[in-house]
Amino acid sequence: MKIDGTPYRSVWVDPIDGWSIRILDQTGLPWNLDILRLTSVREVAHAIRSMQVRGAPLIGAVAAYGMALSMRADTSADAMTATATALKATRPTAVNLAWAIDRMLTRLRSTRQADRLRVAYQEAALIADEDVAQNEAIGRHGMTLIAREAVRAGGRPINILTHCNAGWLATVDWGTALAPIYAAHDAGLPVHVWVDETRPRNQGAGLTAYELGKHGVPHTVIVDNAGGHLMQHGSVDLCIVGADRVTRTGDAANKIGTYLKALAAHDNGVPFWVAVPGTTIDWNVADGVRDIPIEERPATEVTTVTGRAMDGSVVTVRIAPSDSPAANPAFDVTPARLLTGLITERGICAATATGLLGLFPEQAPAQAG
Amino acid sequence: MKIDGTPYRSVWVDPIDGWSIRILDQTGLPWNLDILRLTSVREVAHAIRSMQVRGAPLIGAVAAYGMALSMRADTSADAMTATATALKATRPTAVNLAWAIDRMLTRLRSTRQADRLRVAYQEAALIADEDVAQNEAIGRHGMTLIAREAVRAGGRPINILTHCNAGWLATVDWGTALAPIYAAHDAGLPVHVWVDETRPRNQGAGLTAYELGKHGVPHTVIVDNAGGHLMQHGSVDLCIVGADRVTRTGDAANKIGTYLKALAAHDNGVPFWVAVPGTTIDWNVADGVRDIPIEERPATEVTTVTGRAMDGSVVTVRIAPSDSPAANPAFDVTPARLLTGLITERGICAATATGLLGLFPEQAPAQAG
Repeated sequence: MKIDGTPYRSVWVDPIDGWSIRILDQTGLPWNLDILRLTSVREVAHAIRSMQVRGAPLIGAVAAYGMALSMRADTSADAMTATATALKATRPTAVNLAWAIDRMLTRLRSTRQADRLRVAYQEAALIADEDVAQNEAIGRHGMTLIAREAVRAGGRPINILTHCNAGWLATVDWGTALAPIYAAHDAGLPVHVWVDETRPRNQGAGLTAYELGKHGVPHTVIVDNAGGHLMQHGSVDLCIVGADRVTRTGDAANKIGTYLKALAAHDNGVPFWVAVPGTTIDWNVADGVRDIPIEERPATEVTTVTGRAMDGSVVTVRIAPSDSPAANPAFDVTPARLLTGLITERGICAATATGLLGLFPEQAPAQAG
Repeated sequence: MKIDGTPYRSVWVDPIDGWSIRILDQTGLPWNLDILRLTSVREVAHAIRSMQVRGAPLIGAVAAYGMALSMRADTSADAMTATATALKATRPTAVNLAWAIDRMLTRLRSTRQADRLRVAYQEAALIADEDVAQNEAIGRHGMTLIAREAVRAGGRPINILTHCNAGWLATVDWGTALAPIYAAHDAGLPVHVWVDETRPRNQGAGLTAYELGKHGVPHTVIVDNAGGHLMQHGSVDLCIVGADRVTRTGDAANKIGTYLKALAAHDNGVPFWVAVPGTTIDWNVADGVRDIPIEERPATEVTTVTGRAMDGSVVTVRIAPSDSPAANPAFDVTPARLLTGLITERGICAATATGLLGLFPEQAPAQAG
């Protein structure tokens, strides 16, 4: 997608040196567009942990490039395993991270040592390109849902609520939840997006609003508290969010607060969709509330807010008394029963085991005897 | 309640001059404890509109003192009416404001002009004292709910979630939602409070955490997004919130986001209580979602956050792109069906017309002949 007319991806190989990894520092947005250069696994791990890159699909792609960088230092099987373990530990909730690393490991283990460096870069590039293609397909499929509402609405803008950032900045390009919105907007369908600010890190106010604004999509920032009221009053036609992990039964782990919006959508008859590539589905987990690990992040993310002061400087301010503790669960799990369905690169399905297996039949458990 | 050992109310008549009105500037908390002096209706209106004082019961009491201040300038019936109209227009959602002003008007209209100044101060003081007594009673009744949980919990702390600030800072003293918590804590029941930060103005992180901390009540600040997750995992025993207006059928208008927490409580079988004095009940309204006016406040409350920077200065920072618009509905309405019940100064009742009339029988509509 474009920023001020220049096309970007959220991760790419430096075209000059041909090996270092470039990312946009998302902790600086929407104030500063800084491009960082990652040259080691350590820097990649830091970028993921500190959320310079975030979003389930993007951290998968960046971790894949981290595996490629590690091949520059050591192509041994032991080094590969150690790197994989270190990178997997950076964030616990998103499943794409482990998926991408395991894919790299499988590919590299079946490659003779002399070819591993070259193959690692190839495979990481493939993961990134596949992500882009998948998200474009999610956009195509999801756009049909918006088009259906548009026909009903007879010309007025379709109001779509989203939570956190599942846009192109959360993926390699296009985004998951925002891909249908970009597709609809580009196709000339009138859309308007309610952007949840998404405390504590404000990925909505900072990243989603930034992305949508740069692409010219009409949007309005709201506090996370406001969505229920808007749905009660008919101001939301549908909700689309991304996810960090979807269970094989359709439960969806996503940024903390998603569950509350799904409850409000359910209470008001507003469709609630989760847009994910197949790589976000964890076929090993059935009960999301019980079994998806929820990352607990630092309390300072809750007790402080970072923004731009009147003088243009970026400042972090404390909003709670200095002696008040805080808790910071980063994700919650929305039970499948609250979801209208899932939007994947292979089409739309019910948030059920049957629905998912209909689109991903290769994941069906082998029949006994 | 006490701040660093000194007892305060949130509004009082200056003991030196005997007529000017003192308030704590709540926009400065938790960073600065500034005591403001209000000397005119204009200053009172500004204090209410700018939320130097806020909370339904407190703005009622401050407005009553505003009526008293106006008697210093002009005791005519016309002036009274004009002042009442001006003060009522400062905030549209809370019903205590109109209730307190109408009570002052009724009292003053039946008083001969020469006595109005003295009677106005008397009546305003009565309103303030009655608020304190009512809140103390709410605390007593609400404490029984906490005690019941404590018996079940067998010694572990009772986890109570609250939204916004319905503590002593929102009333003249004690608070509504926090009164049962203070009563339980003072009685030696182990309590722990989950404090929703309550964007956009952070009355939870700023005021509730401050109050609880100063009184020594264990608490943890969370983002507004986190409550649903905590309830899913059994970490909340009950919710208690205040309200700005309760309909005669039990619908409750309270700070934006309350509805989302009530949905989560309902989905997880967590009791959800609304603590209000009888003055917060609007006997003229039945359908809260349809008929309670919801104040739309400035967009800058959403796009900016105020806090204390590392150097100790209080700074306002912008968190959204400068060209992204924002919407700011300040309240939402929780339908009575989601409430476990109401805690009032007269006891506990179901959030239904029958439940409310059981406690307030004088409000029963006159039987047709």
